[in-house]
Amino acid sequence: MDQSGDIETSDGGGMLERNGSSFYDDKDLVGAREPLLRKRTMNTTSQIAIVGANLCPVESLDYEIVENDLFKQDWRSRKRVQIFQYITLKWTLCLLIGLGTGFVGFFNNLAVENIAGFKLLQTSNLMLERRFFEAFVAFAGCNLILAALAAALCAYIAPAAAGSGIPEVKAYLNGVDAPSILAPSTLFVKIFGSIGGVSAGFVLGKEGPMVHTGSCIAFFLGQGGSRKYHLTWTWLRYFKNDRDRRDLITCGAAAGVAAAFRAPVGGVLFALEEAASWWRSALLWRTFFTTAVVAVVLRALIEFCRGGKCGLFGEGGLIMFDLSASVATYSVPDLIAVLVLGILGGFLGSLYNFFLDKILRSYSVINEKGAPYKILLTIAISLLTSCCAYGLPWLAKCTPCPANIQEQCPTIGRSGNFKNFQCPPGHYNDLASLFLNTNDDAIRNLFSKGTYDEFCISTLFIFFAAVYFLGLVTYGIAVPSGLFIPVILAGATYGRIVGTILGPITDLDTGLFALLGAASFLGGTMRMTVSVCVILLELTNDLLMLPLVMLVLLISKTVADSFNKGVYDQIVKMKGLPYMEAHAEPYMRNLVAGDVVSGPLITFSGVEKVGNIVQALRITGHNAFPVVNEPPFADAPELCGLVLRSHLLVLLKGKGFTKERVPTGVVEVLRRFGAFDFAKPGSGKGIKFEDLHILEEEMDMYVDLHPITNTSPYTVVETMSLAKAAVLFRELGLRHLCVVPKTPGRPPIVGILTRHDFMPEHILGLFLHVEPHK
Amino acid sequence: MDQSGDIETSDGGGMLERNGSSFYDDKDLVGAREPLLRKRTMNTTSQIAIVGANLCPVESLDYEIVENDLFKQDWRSRKRVQIFQYITLKWTLCLLIGLGTGFVGFFNNLAVENIAGFKLLQTSNLMLERRFFEAFVAFAGCNLILAALAAALCAYIAPAAAGSGIPEVKAYLNGVDAPSILAPSTLFVKIFGSIGGVSAGFVLGKEGPMVHTGSCIAFFLGQGGSRKYHLTWTWLRYFKNDRDRRDLITCGAAAGVAAAFRAPVGGVLFALEEAASWWRSALLWRTFFTTAVVAVVLRALIEFCRGGKCGLFGEGGLIMFDLSASVATYSVPDLIAVLVLGILGGFLGSLYNFFLDKILRSYSVINEKGAPYKILLTIAISLLTSCCAYGLPWLAKCTPCPANIQEQCPTIGRSGNFKNFQCPPGHYNDLASLFLNTNDDAIRNLFSKGTYDEFCISTLFIFFAAVYFLGLVTYGIAVPSGLFIPVILAGATYGRIVGTILGPITDLDTGLFALLGAASFLGGTMRMTVSVCVILLELTNDLLMLPLVMLVLLISKTVADSFNKGVYDQIVKMKGLPYMEAHAEPYMRNLVAGDVVSGPLITFSGVEKVGNIVQALRITGHNAFPVVNEPPFADAPELCGLVLRSHLLVLLKGKGFTKERVPTGVVEVLRRFGAFDFAKPGSGKGIKFEDLHILEEEMDMYVDLHPITNTSPYTVVETMSLAKAAVLFRELGLRHLCVVPKTPGRPPIVGILTRHDFMPEHILGLFLHVEPHK
Repeated sequence: MDQSGDIETSDGGGMLERNGSSFYDDKDLVGAREPLLRKRTMNTTSQIAIVGANLCPVESLDYEIVENDLFKQDWRSRKRVQIFQYITLKWTLCLLIGLGTGFVGFFNNLAVENIAGFKLLQTSNLMLERRFFEAFVAFAGCNLILAALAAALCAYIAPAAAGSGIPEVKAYLNGVDAPSILAPSTLFVKIFGSIGGVSAGFVLGKEGPMVHTGSCIAFFLGQGGSRKYHLTWTWLRYFKNDRDRRDLITCGAAAGVAAAFRAPVGGVLFALEEAASWWRSALLWRTFFTTAVVAVVLRALIEFCRGGKCGLFGEGGLIMFDLSASVATYSVPDLIAVLVLGILGGFLGSLYNFFLDKILRSYSVINEKGAPYKILLTIAISLLTSCCAYGLPWLAKCTPCPANIQEQCPTIGRSGNFKNFQCPPGHYNDLASLFLNTNDDAIRNLFSKGTYDEFCISTLFIFFAAVYFLGLVTYGIAVPSGLFIPVILAGATYGRIVGTILGPITDLDTGLFALLGAASFLGGTMRMTVSVCVILLELTNDLLMLPLVMLVLLISKTVADSFNKGVYDQIVKMKGLPYMEAHAEPYMRNLVAGDVVSGPLITFSGVEKVGNIVQALRITGHNAFPVVNEPPFADAPELCGLVLRSHLLVLLKGKGFTKERVPTGVVEVLRRFGAFDFAKPGSGKGIKFEDLHILEEEMDMYVDLHPITNTSPYTVVETMSLAKAAVLFRELGLRHLCVVPKTPGRPPIVGILTRHDFMPEHILGLFLHVEPHK
Repeated sequence: MDQSGDIETSDGGGMLERNGSSFYDDKDLVGAREPLLRKRTMNTTSQIAIVGANLCPVESLDYEIVENDLFKQDWRSRKRVQIFQYITLKWTLCLLIGLGTGFVGFFNNLAVENIAGFKLLQTSNLMLERRFFEAFVAFAGCNLILAALAAALCAYIAPAAAGSGIPEVKAYLNGVDAPSILAPSTLFVKIFGSIGGVSAGFVLGKEGPMVHTGSCIAFFLGQGGSRKYHLTWTWLRYFKNDRDRRDLITCGAAAGVAAAFRAPVGGVLFALEEAASWWRSALLWRTFFTTAVVAVVLRALIEFCRGGKCGLFGEGGLIMFDLSASVATYSVPDLIAVLVLGILGGFLGSLYNFFLDKILRSYSVINEKGAPYKILLTIAISLLTSCCAYGLPWLAKCTPCPANIQEQCPTIGRSGNFKNFQCPPGHYNDLASLFLNTNDDAIRNLFSKGTYDEFCISTLFIFFAAVYFLGLVTYGIAVPSGLFIPVILAGATYGRIVGTILGPITDLDTGLFALLGAASFLGGTMRMTVSVCVILLELTNDLLMLPLVMLVLLISKTVADSFNKGVYDQIVKMKGLPYMEAHAEPYMRNLVAGDVVSGPLITFSGVEKVGNIVQALRITGHNAFPVVNEPPFADAPELCGLVLRSHLLVLLKGKGFTKERVPTGVVEVLRRFGAFDFAKPGSGKGIKFEDLHILEEEMDMYVDLHPITNTSPYTVVETMSLAKAAVLFRELGLRHLCVVPKTPGRPPIVGILTRHDFMPEHILGLFLHVEPHK
């Protein structure tokens, strides 16, 4: 039982090889530099199982409440005033996030409306003068320049800004901190890249990027600005921990949706249903506040812009696609129509996910070749989009303007239902009304009610095929691109097709069918329910359709779920982010925690030799090390707690070592460090191993680890069912889970489980040779 | 270390006194009947800390996944078809819950509208004939009879049906199974008592009772009907576990709100924000389905009733108080008005909570005296309400009907804005328009837009005072009574008062002020945010007011939170239900798990003597016992797992004991029992200790506990911070948490933490004499 020798001896022999585990799992490291470090017999089942190590350059978030004495000390000494300060600051931060995201969302909208509006206006004017080729050149040229700019920003400054960003935010909130995903540079590129991408006429939306933007803003504000760009506020030190950071980023994600769709409640629900992995009611309250601020900001800015003060920015209110006051009486044939619509929509939605996965995998081959290839790919897709948008409307024939309408017909300018295109005066081209518009206006046209005859069925089929295809090939290029708008666009067209076909047998308006079609596609791809429902409600202001929208969402999600996973989950998986699912896999019931904990374990003594710590930090990437108290500090070896790599680095950098192996205690550490020296820095900002400068003579000195040891790590017994260990790990948002032996008389810790140990690939890798199809 | 003696000896000596803990904490039980059971030295800090015991007649829900071999066995053998069956059944149950709750909600509405409508019509007719006294007698008499009936049902059949029911459902979903709170008798009384109470003209609502009704329906269906009333379906055996039951009851609560307010999305959010303590995304999806079913059922039934087919049931659609199409332009003075409204509303709301608490405490003295007193109290309040409703309108003077309105004026019938009351023709009494109406109609009148002059300020003040007071004194009588409607009623009146006063300086409609006032009161009492927001949105169909409603809710909740807790939390606390808060208390950071685990612990051996088990079951109420494997079954004493009281009872009832102390294994148990014999029965339905008939000779035989032992209990080390243990307990929804020793060489289990050990009263009771203001 008492395996560890007397480690009071100062020659360092046997120091790091106690409790049946050793420092190394890599042979070339052993023996060569430190001949005294011997390799013990290990129960290495697999080389993948490097306990505590992160295998990919991804950092997990640690949501444990740091309970060590240092922070306790701080908590006790914190006066009421400070707690009030903390709460006030947190609310202020939420306010700032709301303000920031609201402004950015409005700025995005304003810029897009002006740039795209100008582009479309020029094209229309040239067409009116029958200079068709020049019109195409102007149109495609504008698109190309905007696309190339956006791609260049993305490819050279922040590659992490490409794509939707929702999968990354989702993974971050699950505990996976992918590098530079929330960095200020990403924020910059996301804002301007998104404006470029949307203005360039791509079939993509600004919703995903807005969620990412909101999260970036929250991260930026939450960590007190960027140290890299000298924009730091030190008074935000209280928020330098995982829990507060996570809360703020959830608020940011909600604010993003609220800004993009002008849907405050929808934003809260999106954050709850899709983004967040952990939730508590205080968070609901905080996200609600943030989105309320966004709504107020948007409303004030829209009010300010009323009357053409903001260039081509429209008159639209908070409701983007107002469908209200449409009569919603429906009978049994309507319900059957809706049923069919939902089933087909779910099928088409899951097919969308399937194709998207394939296309993303092929694109990643191109994108990996380097930035120039990314830009070339974007340019190619831009040309393709321009050709479709300009070329396909020629296939449609001109329709005479309907006699008794209030709207202008034909229209030449920026938006409007009836585009003149190549047609003679008094006629309009219905396909051009969809193609030569911003995506928002195209959706508005599709949703418009009382316009049964406006789009003929062939037009809708052509547009549907084009949008479905373009939406697929556009996502994945190096431009910030949301998935909501392409899906809504394709879904609305699909719904209008169904509505037009079923027109003779149903009383529902084709505009309502378009709304239901959009719902079915959203249900089929995103697999969200309540949030999509509320977002659609807030987009259209049509509460009477709520039961039908719910029905369609339920059906399409059920149908699609039987084929594949939701699009964001699929992307998370494809990117290789170690996402922890909310439920344990069934095969985990047949395993115990001890089965997956394997490989060597590095432990420290309560008062450890500096050299050993430096060595451990150098040769491993482990983020936490168990601290074991041994005689004479304890009667028998016992687990004292966990010490984090980042805290070790701070401690070592602060020096203050002792010659003798004696505990210095908390007071000494408190004297040398401020309480917030140990607070978690922003991603990639903490002290690095390279920053340490330990002198040769200090290597043989000792340092007391007790003050920085988290003495209350969560533990499971090695015979605990792996399923239950996974539930524990997931529900508490842990980063490290100590596995302790069941029977006494063995070393006090068997190993540490990390997120990677719960990944199916890891577990299947371990056991595949034992039981193939477990 | 190996303290336990050889327990193979068949005389039973020393059997129950191993590992430093003993069976008893009660001196009179020790020594008298079983002289061989000796008392060991114990570290009893307090007599309250009876480990594993429940001190009040409340059963905690156990959300642990049962991982023992028996269920594993069953899981393995379950074919794909069975899993499909399970999923289909669960969805079918949700469908049935939705259908049931939708029908009950509609039936409630129908009955109330007809009964109350008939009552009001008769009163109005008598008044038209100037027979004022007879009118009062008819009015008060009807109210009194209905009230007495409802109170009698409540007092004699199901006392648990009194009040809102939301606090109880909330506590149940937190893990507190108060007796008969979801029993079929409660369901019955809740449905008919609520109809009686609302029809009797009390200032109470049907919303809380509907939530409770929905939960009862879910419980009834989920446990496969009631065995007591011979309404059992055995094919629901798969759902006899805590997780599925909790899910279904959450769906039921959501369906209740959806049915009461005709607000499906609001229902989902209510379940999420207020009712549920644990949440996972699959549940969102399931509640959404359930409330969608409710919406469809309600819509179909309302459609069916169109055209007067359902007696006095109105024409109303899904939107209860339609406010749409009101123009929402607001400027800075409006915002200031809203700010003031929110602050005052929050203050009045928290004052409401304060008074409610005082009144409930005084009522409980009366109610505890017995059923007749309950009925008398109800009758007294009914008379008071009738006097107010009939008497106070005489204070208001008659107003001439406005000239250019589309509505009928004055009205005599059931509802309507302009009540004739005592006035001459062509005039109306504005106070009677509020008092002599159903609560729903009064709210509709207050919310009505473009009616600035309809109610004079003195009328509103009288009505506000009366409703605020009556709402307070009505809750707590023995009638199912919701709090939403009184709060909305008082809030809307308050809002209208503010709107009328501020009329000259603001452009907002007084009807909109009434809505904002209702929001401020809801925020101030209930402290819900997103759900109230969405419920109000779905009630009024006025999306444009959303930013203002959000603002008011935020302000009023913030103001009220600085005074006291939300009304439901307050009632939960007053009822003494051991509710686990989502966060750990700060003082828990200074304690460790070992501090609160105290008192004696009963452990069983892996193969235990029947007599010892019977003895343990008889003298304690513990719900779980640790099983410790000792030599010769293990090298050293080790914790095998936890065995539940209910499983022990099933095992003992099944007999099959062995003469020798040998493990019989899983196969033997599987042969004798069906897998679902161990499934959790409905509350109060399981085998009781009295049902056991163990023969004298069987007492000395042995039974193998391994097959029914949960071998993966969650454990914490005794030095784990209590705050972190509480987080673990709460987040995983545990019922028992094993505390294991830190150092080896001691018994393998220190104690078991239950819900009661985390209650502040318990902890403060333990430590008050040590450190007073820790």
